[in-house]
Amino acid sequence: MSVRVGILGATGAVGQRFIQLLDGHPTFELAAVTASPSSAGSTYREAAKWRVDTPIPDDVAEMEVVATDPDAIADADVDLLFSSLPSSVAAEVEPPFLEAGYVVSSNSSNDRMAADVPLTIPEINPDHLGLIDVQRDERGWDGALVKNPNCSTITMVPTLAALDEFGLETVHVSTLQAVSGAGYSGVTSMEILDNAIPHIGGEEDKMETESRKLLGSFDGAELALHDADVAASCNRIPTLDGHLENVFAELADDPDPAAVREAMRAFESADLPSSPDPLIKVFGPDEPDRPQPRLDRTYAGGMGIVAGGVEATTNGIQYNCLAHNTIRGAAGASILNGELLVEEGYV
Amino acid sequence: MSVRVGILGATGAVGQRFIQLLDGHPTFELAAVTASPSSAGSTYREAAKWRVDTPIPDDVAEMEVVATDPDAIADADVDLLFSSLPSSVAAEVEPPFLEAGYVVSSNSSNDRMAADVPLTIPEINPDHLGLIDVQRDERGWDGALVKNPNCSTITMVPTLAALDEFGLETVHVSTLQAVSGAGYSGVTSMEILDNAIPHIGGEEDKMETESRKLLGSFDGAELALHDADVAASCNRIPTLDGHLENVFAELADDPDPAAVREAMRAFESADLPSSPDPLIKVFGPDEPDRPQPRLDRTYAGGMGIVAGGVEATTNGIQYNCLAHNTIRGAAGASILNGELLVEEGYV
Amino acid sequence: MSVRVGILGATGAVGQRFIQLLDGHPTFELAAVTASPSSAGSTYREAAKWRVDTPIPDDVAEMEVVATDPDAIADADVDLLFSSLPSSVAAEVEPPFLEAGYVVSSNSSNDRMAADVPLTIPEINPDHLGLIDVQRDERGWDGALVKNPNCSTITMVPTLAALDEFGLETVHVSTLQAVSGAGYSGVTSMEILDNAIPHIGGEEDKMETESRKLLGSFDGAELALHDADVAASCNRIPTLDGHLENVFAELADDPDPAAVREAMRAFESADLPSSPDPLIKVFGPDEPDRPQPRLDRTYAGGMGIVAGGVEATTNGIQYNCLAHNTIRGAAGASILNGELLVEEGYV
Amino acid sequence: MSVRVGILGATGAVGQRFIQLLDGHPTFELAAVTASPSSAGSTYREAAKWRVDTPIPDDVAEMEVVATDPDAIADADVDLLFSSLPSSVAAEVEPPFLEAGYVVSSNSSNDRMAADVPLTIPEINPDHLGLIDVQRDERGWDGALVKNPNCSTITMVPTLAALDEFGLETVHVSTLQAVSGAGYSGVTSMEILDNAIPHIGGEEDKMETESRKLLGSFDGAELALHDADVAASCNRIPTLDGHLENVFAELADDPDPAAVREAMRAFESADLPSSPDPLIKVFGPDEPDRPQPRLDRTYAGGMGIVAGGVEATTNGIQYNCLAHNTIRGAAGASILNGELLVEEGYV
Repeated sequence: MSVRVGILGATGAVGQRFIQLLDGHPTFELAAVTASPSSAGSTYREAAKWRVDTPIPDDVAEMEVVATDPDAIADADVDLLFSSLPSSVAAEVEPPFLEAGYVVSSNSSNDRMAADVPLTIPEINPDHLGLIDVQRDERGWDGALVKNPNCSTITMVPTLAALDEFGLETVHVSTLQAVSGAGYSGVTSMEILDNAIPHIGGEEDKMETESRKLLGSFDGAELALHDADVAASCNRIPTLDGHLENVFAELADDPDPAAVREAMRAFESADLPSSPDPLIKVFGPDEPDRPQPRLDRTYAGGMGIVAGGVEATTNGIQYNCLAHNTIRGAAGASILNGELLVEEGYV
Repeated sequence: MSVRVGILGATGAVGQRFIQLLDGHPTFELAAVTASPSSAGSTYREAAKWRVDTPIPDDVAEMEVVATDPDAIADADVDLLFSSLPSSVAAEVEPPFLEAGYVVSSNSSNDRMAADVPLTIPEINPDHLGLIDVQRDERGWDGALVKNPNCSTITMVPTLAALDEFGLETVHVSTLQAVSGAGYSGVTSMEILDNAIPHIGGEEDKMETESRKLLGSFDGAELALHDADVAASCNRIPTLDGHLENVFAELADDPDPAAVREAMRAFESADLPSSPDPLIKVFGPDEPDRPQPRLDRTYAGGMGIVAGGVEATTNGIQYNCLAHNTIRGAAGASILNGELLVEEGYV
Repeated sequence: MSVRVGILGATGAVGQRFIQLLDGHPTFELAAVTASPSSAGSTYREAAKWRVDTPIPDDVAEMEVVATDPDAIADADVDLLFSSLPSSVAAEVEPPFLEAGYVVSSNSSNDRMAADVPLTIPEINPDHLGLIDVQRDERGWDGALVKNPNCSTITMVPTLAALDEFGLETVHVSTLQAVSGAGYSGVTSMEILDNAIPHIGGEEDKMETESRKLLGSFDGAELALHDADVAASCNRIPTLDGHLENVFAELADDPDPAAVREAMRAFESADLPSSPDPLIKVFGPDEPDRPQPRLDRTYAGGMGIVAGGVEATTNGIQYNCLAHNTIRGAAGASILNGELLVEEGYV
Repeated sequence: MSVRVGILGATGAVGQRFIQLLDGHPTFELAAVTASPSSAGSTYREAAKWRVDTPIPDDVAEMEVVATDPDAIADADVDLLFSSLPSSVAAEVEPPFLEAGYVVSSNSSNDRMAADVPLTIPEINPDHLGLIDVQRDERGWDGALVKNPNCSTITMVPTLAALDEFGLETVHVSTLQAVSGAGYSGVTSMEILDNAIPHIGGEEDKMETESRKLLGSFDGAELALHDADVAASCNRIPTLDGHLENVFAELADDPDPAAVREAMRAFESADLPSSPDPLIKVFGPDEPDRPQPRLDRTYAGGMGIVAGGVEATTNGIQYNCLAHNTIRGAAGASILNGELLVEEGYV
């Protein structure tokens, strides 16, 4: 079975990752690439300043870029769209596609916390897709909008989901985030060489709210946020890819580190083409200096979560987790949601 | 008044910082530099691979290096010794100097948690010097041994001291530490370029125990540790100097961020030559991306503490703090303790 | 004697260096700071995103920023202007100041190769200031325009001047340039982390042409370029400040490395407040790994040239040289030219 | 056809690359791994601190490490050995294997310039293998010793070979070398962060002499060095992998840049499993900022050479070239020589 897909905003940094990851995908066939009007009519090779370390797939290089507009892609006969637009652009551009009946798996941050928009990680909360029915009722769309969380959120949430059996109460998390998370021009070299920046605009709030939605429960009509308190402190450091996070979790129960490692290792993955197995790779106490961004961000092709450094604290545990921020944390997350949408019959 | 001082282990990275900081010191006059026996007899210029970005002071360059032995420095007529030896070496070498009657202000980590050794930050717990009497009673030394804390501890403790008026209960701290903290050869470039390492051997334990000793109370005979729970997660990142730390503090009271900033700003410094004023420089909510290692590590010549990013959490506050790890966190800390020892009449 | 000076374009990266370097200058008193019209009326503190690692001087912080326009600074009673504008802006903005009678010492690249504009390094070609008479004749200006060369050129030219006694014929130079040379936002972190870029737009041409003008001879009416062939290959690397350059020079004579080192060391400096002495610090064969950007860029407060690694080749010599690109290579170069203009009576 | 191979010194940084590259090799089957006596008897997983970003192949992980001694590998039935030992160790350890009849393809620098040892790049000088007969005559070995050049040499020599048709006379080359070339612990982070080092011990001499041997001609009995003058200036910069080099070549003829690019593109590769096609990828004038280490080091799996920036100079040309220093410049180079030895019937 082949599904024809398109990418909205295909020339940017995340757009390039989409193209890299879709090359050779077992079911998705790339059939449309959109960009701003000024690029429409160019080939993809001309329109994109390609900066990924594998070559542009030959067929994509010669594909014509079209405007980000339902009319412009009408002929492409596409069943599923991925979106990696800046959130302000996405907020204007996504609705017309949804009205036109497209299913959109979006990495853009707009509407992630909307009550009728599923914010989904397939291994964590696939049942939240049920919100699509609510969404269609309320908005009158034929299409469907599904979001994946922010890169820093997605790095941590699978480990929190694994901990939830011990009664997750409070989370304090510090992040060491790679520069690629800010886009190709987001962080200048003068800002970050021999330095670290203890602030990323809006990021702390995203981690605090998105986590509670992802771990929340859906009763078929409404979604209740998880009641854990989450406080985040976000830092940019001079690494290229891979977000590393230090988590302090206060728990109702008192599991020892071995039980925590076992719960993480045993946490079930999804049966989808891009899901890793296991979902969470866990380093034991004999390798306390892992995970590390450069050595571990490529686990499972960048789609896995890697944890380690699990230790007991007075009223909970502390540990480290890591994921590849532009694969599992962005383009790969949207593709995985696309796979879930196919699996669940929405495409 | 001039005090003649010596440096035990003067050729290493911290030793070079001692020499840089003592150059032009208002009261301390460098009169002896020691190193391993193989360097004894060389000039300092020959013995040290000088790597500080200011030149070797001319008089020090031609000074003769002697062995790290009380006999070898007997002629130097020194009143106060600074020590920056590896802890395993210091554990063997410091006692003979103490028996010989020297006052030693040491940066080495051995004996920091010993019940009769003052672990001191002059602006925080100068009264702990009273332990010297206990120490002399117990050990029969004519001299006196005073320690300063680890670089990651000293970055955070002044801010915790300022918070203590609100009832400090629990501390979760994540560190982003510079490579210089591991010494000149401690971190290889292959380990740290495009990477971060979420583990520094022994560091987390030092932060957890030393903090409670520094904030503890001394009744003239015994020192009681502060009863706050402290859990630390320590990371090495690709910066040269300056440790940045994210603190989550749970408090008995519920101060707002403005009150916390005010408490930090108002925290009293010491009246010593190397003490900064104010001790803690605090950035407000209009500059949420400060402090940053490269921009703020030189505050007060590297002797100050810089804080920012103060925000409320559900049951406390979170904020960031920073200090220069090889100045305030090592050589400068020992020199400041030396100034306190002079002020209090121990030298 | 005090000279009142102004800075055109005072809020950018080079503008901030001007302010840092003028703080405490023995003769120059900062009396006016200009920026784009949108900043006019703000205080300097409000208008500049200060990114230098020393604080804004207090008096400058509260100075009112005015538009970059002769009328706007008329009340400031300024005798000398420094300019660090982007070259396209400078090309439009500098002429009105020159017509209004101001003497302008400019770091901007426009007009550097114009036949009637002195391109000057005070220690190398102070006599080229004589072009000012030609310039006034031709352009009808009451003021005077003097340029300093590009940062990569100025790093190399003093060493070439020292070699010229051996008959300089051909120069092949490779540069390892710091990111600050491209301005605060010129190089993104995604471009340069774990990378190097073997191209800097226009830079190779600047090194090839400016060098020949600087080393050229002025007969009182016309300036003849030096006839050496210069070919440059320019690279950006992940360092913050300090350009390192590898030079291969083919010479008519056949000096040994010791003679070359001696010629560099003996090259005369200028008797101006900001000139270093010696102009060129030369490392000998016992320290073949110097100069290094981080260790040597601060020689003489960043105003010196540092050389090393001198070795013989078949028909000449090879060596390395280094200078601080935003001090000696930009703001400091303009200030030094300003000092020369005062000394020579043009101000 | 399968060839059983072994690795001498398999646990170090280059040894790990050998194992990574041999995993899935079409003809070579890894049958023995050696290390220092202290590791003998351990599994490879225990003995190696694995630092490559792909996992240890499962079968290698459980392989028993043996001592680096002909007796210790006698049972492994190996036909070809790869060596990546430090040169001082290799100088002692390689001869016994050669006496015992093994064919050794070695990356170690000892004996590279010996008159009877082929220094080979299969695409450049495969005929130099004829020196093996001379070697066997002179040394009485049943085995055969073949060397590959230094990583900085191999990056440049294929482009020089392509230029030789224009009459190569003089080469000035500046290198920007990655830290991995110095081994896992060769460059400390304190040395290289925000820095560059204009000296790598012995490297300049290797580039100057090895290049002339590789480009030399073999008449069946003796090898004559190429008579070009080569002068190199070697720099270490803060990149992980990939050596970038700026070349200035003086030529007898006067080709234009297009002709030079064409000669490089047309230069014939070898018909061996690990040879890239084309050998040299050349960027044109529309992409003057390539090659770049991070973007181009993976061309052809790290086995290719990438060039660009070709421009005319007064008496020749200048250009940039790049190769992956631990793949094409070390382990991959030895494997390719092994493939040539099999092809030519020496194994």
